[in-house]
Amino acid sequence: MKQKKMPEPEMNGIIDVETMASMSGLDYLEAMIRRDLPRMPIEKTLGFEIVEAREGRAVFISEPRTAHYNAIGTVHAGYTATLLDSCMACAVLSTLPKGTGFTTMEFKVSLLRPMTKDTGPVRAEGTILSRGRRGASAEGRLTDSRGKLIAHSTTTCLIFSF
Amino acid sequence: MKQKKMPEPEMNGIIDVETMASMSGLDYLEAMIRRDLPRMPIEKTLGFEIVEAREGRAVFISEPRTAHYNAIGTVHAGYTATLLDSCMACAVLSTLPKGTGFTTMEFKVSLLRPMTKDTGPVRAEGTILSRGRRGASAEGRLTDSRGKLIAHSTTTCLIFSF
Amino acid sequence: MKQKKMPEPEMNGIIDVETMASMSGLDYLEAMIRRDLPRMPIEKTLGFEIVEAREGRAVFISEPRTAHYNAIGTVHAGYTATLLDSCMACAVLSTLPKGTGFTTMEFKVSLLRPMTKDTGPVRAEGTILSRGRRGASAEGRLTDSRGKLIAHSTTTCLIFSF
Amino acid sequence: MKQKKMPEPEMNGIIDVETMASMSGLDYLEAMIRRDLPRMPIEKTLGFEIVEAREGRAVFISEPRTAHYNAIGTVHAGYTATLLDSCMACAVLSTLPKGTGFTTMEFKVSLLRPMTKDTGPVRAEGTILSRGRRGASAEGRLTDSRGKLIAHSTTTCLIFSF
Repeated sequence: MKQKKMPEPEMNGIIDVETMASMSGLDYLEAMIRRDLPRMPIEKTLGFEIVEAREGRAVFISEPRTAHYNAIGTVHAGYTATLLDSCMACAVLSTLPKGTGFTTMEFKVSLLRPMTKDTGPVRAEGTILSRGRRGASAEGRLTDSRGKLIAHSTTTCLIFSF
Repeated sequence: MKQKKMPEPEMNGIIDVETMASMSGLDYLEAMIRRDLPRMPIEKTLGFEIVEAREGRAVFISEPRTAHYNAIGTVHAGYTATLLDSCMACAVLSTLPKGTGFTTMEFKVSLLRPMTKDTGPVRAEGTILSRGRRGASAEGRLTDSRGKLIAHSTTTCLIFSF
Repeated sequence: MKQKKMPEPEMNGIIDVETMASMSGLDYLEAMIRRDLPRMPIEKTLGFEIVEAREGRAVFISEPRTAHYNAIGTVHAGYTATLLDSCMACAVLSTLPKGTGFTTMEFKVSLLRPMTKDTGPVRAEGTILSRGRRGASAEGRLTDSRGKLIAHSTTTCLIFSF
Repeated sequence: MKQKKMPEPEMNGIIDVETMASMSGLDYLEAMIRRDLPRMPIEKTLGFEIVEAREGRAVFISEPRTAHYNAIGTVHAGYTATLLDSCMACAVLSTLPKGTGFTTMEFKVSLLRPMTKDTGPVRAEGTILSRGRRGASAEGRLTDSRGKLIAHSTTTCLIFSF
């Protein structure tokens, strides 16, 4: 696996396009889970990580903290959106063969229950809804440790060859 | 303006419900802009802030940084969603009289152009689309310093009396 | 049950608010299924009907026809949206007690596969995602007779007392 | 302009792919407006038509009727969605050169005000938000004759070469 020899420290977690194009999506996700690839910068900024991937499915975990709060003592919807976008995008990525990339074009998030720092660990599970040659759709479900649905999302991605 | 006497340090930026219920939405936003109210925790975590508010409209600014990056060297869509949700929610809040609150039920984000740390300052402007007694809709536009549209969003909020 | 003495024929299928407020949502849907209540006008215009309802769930069936076509020989997405909005709205309605009403505030439709008049019968199944005191969310799945997913949707509704 | 010699009567309004691929999107829309091309079947079923098109923009008009009603005496959201999807899809089409096609992948509709048969004529205006090589986004606004916003929508389309 080819990587830049001397990455700038602050660019740690950024994969060059050649590395990405040389692996299937699932191989890439599995390397992330094994930590053979560095975590994404945003994962460290907000505190979340990928824990599972198989074809058409990816799971991230996190724990809501005060650092994620809006003004009124609940978690900001941007945190929710970050977890859900991540799991849906990786569910799409998990279906891509070597030499193929994708871009997220849009996503919608339905906020069903509030989260606070007392919510405990949460799990964002992305599942593919459809995968065509040029486009893909996925849904995401964010649940608490008892399986209660906190938020739901769907996304549309564009698929292309490198 | 009533506030908890000794807020826990980590709870700085969280407003108690009584304070919020005692102010109109626009008064509340103007106090945030003047920094008479502390910034939301998530604002500090991700680096963004409110700079303008008037009835039916709110503007946040930020600058994309490496800390917001996904794995492939562009800004994660969760950052985009955070800015857009913030400006739309505050556009709704700006229309609320004293004693009224709101909850964001859903939002959709359309990602039109990628952002990197070279994008420079961005501006997220929320505008009300409709405001009823029990619900409201708003749209958000994220633009770069030349006014180019980077992302678009719409939201649905529920309105209630405290 | 109060009704206009001489309803215009074209108003057949419109229920007055008093009738609606006097029944629980599920009772109302069951009366529709038994045809004790007339079909909605749009059901006759586009050709679809409700066939199942239980708490948190409602199913409509239809068959795509040339009358539903867009310019390029496939079914117009407006037909898809009509079926999905119907099943999601009725899934929400199925959870409402007597004296309670709802309004659909928004919905999103993901179009996963095209439909033509050769698709055969389709089934739109709406399921509640969350039901609060003032709001509700539901998802909808449109499938063909082999269970293949043709379209997916989510909605946000506002709930109120009459 | 090449067309099938003897179209089946019920297939009137369906354009063959060769005809479509031989024209730019804007030429195609202008031919629809001049009625050199037949109206789409769904336009006749629901009663709406295209009246304006220029690059990045398309306008449809209609008038809500009892045939569009849901059970409670207002227009079904499927009618709203049909008008908005049409104007957004045609706004995307208006930007496409000869030999290029598109597919709508998703759209979201925000319902801001109810419509009845007393609403009078409505206007659905689609405007492009972004147009890339492989994808496009558009927004749609449905207004009454006084310019009041009745519904808002956004869409994501995939673009491809025939």
